[in-house]
Amino acid sequence: MSRGRTAKVLAHRYDGGLRRQPDQLIVEEPLEIHLDGVLVATTMRTPGHDFELAAGFCFTEGLLAGAPVRQCRYCGTGSAVDSEFNVVSVDTGGRAPVPVPRLTTTTSACGMCGTTAIDELRGRLHPLPPRPPVGLDVLAGLPGTLGGDQELFDLTGAVHAAVAFDRSGAAVLGREDVGRHNAVDKVVGRLLLDGALPAHELGLWVSGRASFEIVQKAWAAGLGTVVAVSAPSSLAVSAARLAGMTLCGFARGGRLNVYSGLEG
Amino acid sequence: MSRGRTAKVLAHRYDGGLRRQPDQLIVEEPLEIHLDGVLVATTMRTPGHDFELAAGFCFTEGLLAGAPVRQCRYCGTGSAVDSEFNVVSVDTGGRAPVPVPRLTTTTSACGMCGTTAIDELRGRLHPLPPRPPVGLDVLAGLPGTLGGDQELFDLTGAVHAAVAFDRSGAAVLGREDVGRHNAVDKVVGRLLLDGALPAHELGLWVSGRASFEIVQKAWAAGLGTVVAVSAPSSLAVSAARLAGMTLCGFARGGRLNVYSGLEG
Repeated sequence: MSRGRTAKVLAHRYDGGLRRQPDQLIVEEPLEIHLDGVLVATTMRTPGHDFELAAGFCFTEGLLAGAPVRQCRYCGTGSAVDSEFNVVSVDTGGRAPVPVPRLTTTTSACGMCGTTAIDELRGRLHPLPPRPPVGLDVLAGLPGTLGGDQELFDLTGAVHAAVAFDRSGAAVLGREDVGRHNAVDKVVGRLLLDGALPAHELGLWVSGRASFEIVQKAWAAGLGTVVAVSAPSSLAVSAARLAGMTLCGFARGGRLNVYSGLEG
Repeated sequence: MSRGRTAKVLAHRYDGGLRRQPDQLIVEEPLEIHLDGVLVATTMRTPGHDFELAAGFCFTEGLLAGAPVRQCRYCGTGSAVDSEFNVVSVDTGGRAPVPVPRLTTTTSACGMCGTTAIDELRGRLHPLPPRPPVGLDVLAGLPGTLGGDQELFDLTGAVHAAVAFDRSGAAVLGREDVGRHNAVDKVVGRLLLDGALPAHELGLWVSGRASFEIVQKAWAAGLGTVVAVSAPSSLAVSAARLAGMTLCGFARGGRLNVYSGLEG
């Protein structure tokens, strides 16, 4: 497996006739994320910015609970050249809470039913502070000014991008990944490692849809605006309204829909 | 929260001017999947075909290990009308192996590094049996004949579809979901509950990209062909070649790329 972010393969192109041609694919490899020695997630990701991804994931999923990250490191056995770069350990010196296993034996009455994802967020995150709105003309212009950063997409047609932008709409930080959530975690992880969270002055542009988890991760990072090229889900809108976040979708060609943030 | 698959919200449409207009969103809600009383996953999904999703997930992730599904049921506390439909219990009467918690304390040497996703599949799944190839003209024509089943996409612009098709290219079974993997699990789950697995005579068309997990799920179900509208990842191609699966990408407008299955 390649350590690069793209890999060349020989494919057959069919368009009535058939011919062999090289094709560039996005690399997807598993990354194990450990927090203080405990495996907390295995995510399929595009290699690169792995420390940001690991730190960002632990942060946006609420696993750090305010504990500072002391160190991120690759954690290999040396048994295989490639796989040792597929494990990252995030170290808080034990200041983060011990992660709770996800597999939980429940009673036959399924006592967890009443707990919804929204409730979990409400208990963990505070509403975003009021802030002067960013102009809709700025937000509607975002894909045009940010799209050029998607270098991997141009090569492979298969990645998602997440870009933090400032109040003028200028790109501050962009990341790409085969997974949408990973691209966001990489952006948030960079901000975290730079000591720049909460990032109330920044917004987040994402190249695909706005799912609940995208909104959750942006909220955790204090990002007050999320602009998605495609549609939001119902739960994403509910979460954004709870957060006091401006959530826009279908942001293409100078137009967009605003689903949250213009109320009242 | 709505029990429907779409939800209406009032949004603001910006195109230079601003006006309020109703918009139809895809519903996204958490589903807890329990296997023999143990919580094995919480997935964000579009409600509907939940038993198929839960059974399909357990099957494609290798959790059943050959055990038959005796029953699927909703498992509510009655404390909330909606949330009781967000937990599904898959029951094998204890014949499935006890699920292993995902959070595992590891040594400081990170002993799991050498285990790759591909190795895990190789140990769990057999290569697909040889079969007569489906014509590339049939595969290249798939999006046109199957696209009409995407009713939710037409409404919301935000779902993924997975469709099982036969050797003539006719749709046998289609499912939609806010999550790509869920759409595949719903298709596989239906086939499982119908006693139709392994489905060596069927192929799978997916509306988006072909990730490793899509190929893994199709392989587990014995589907010999996967056709994706968008790009595959490098690991998806590796897995497909290991499986002996025909994997096509960029299947649009009568054209496609073949990444696996035409070798030799």
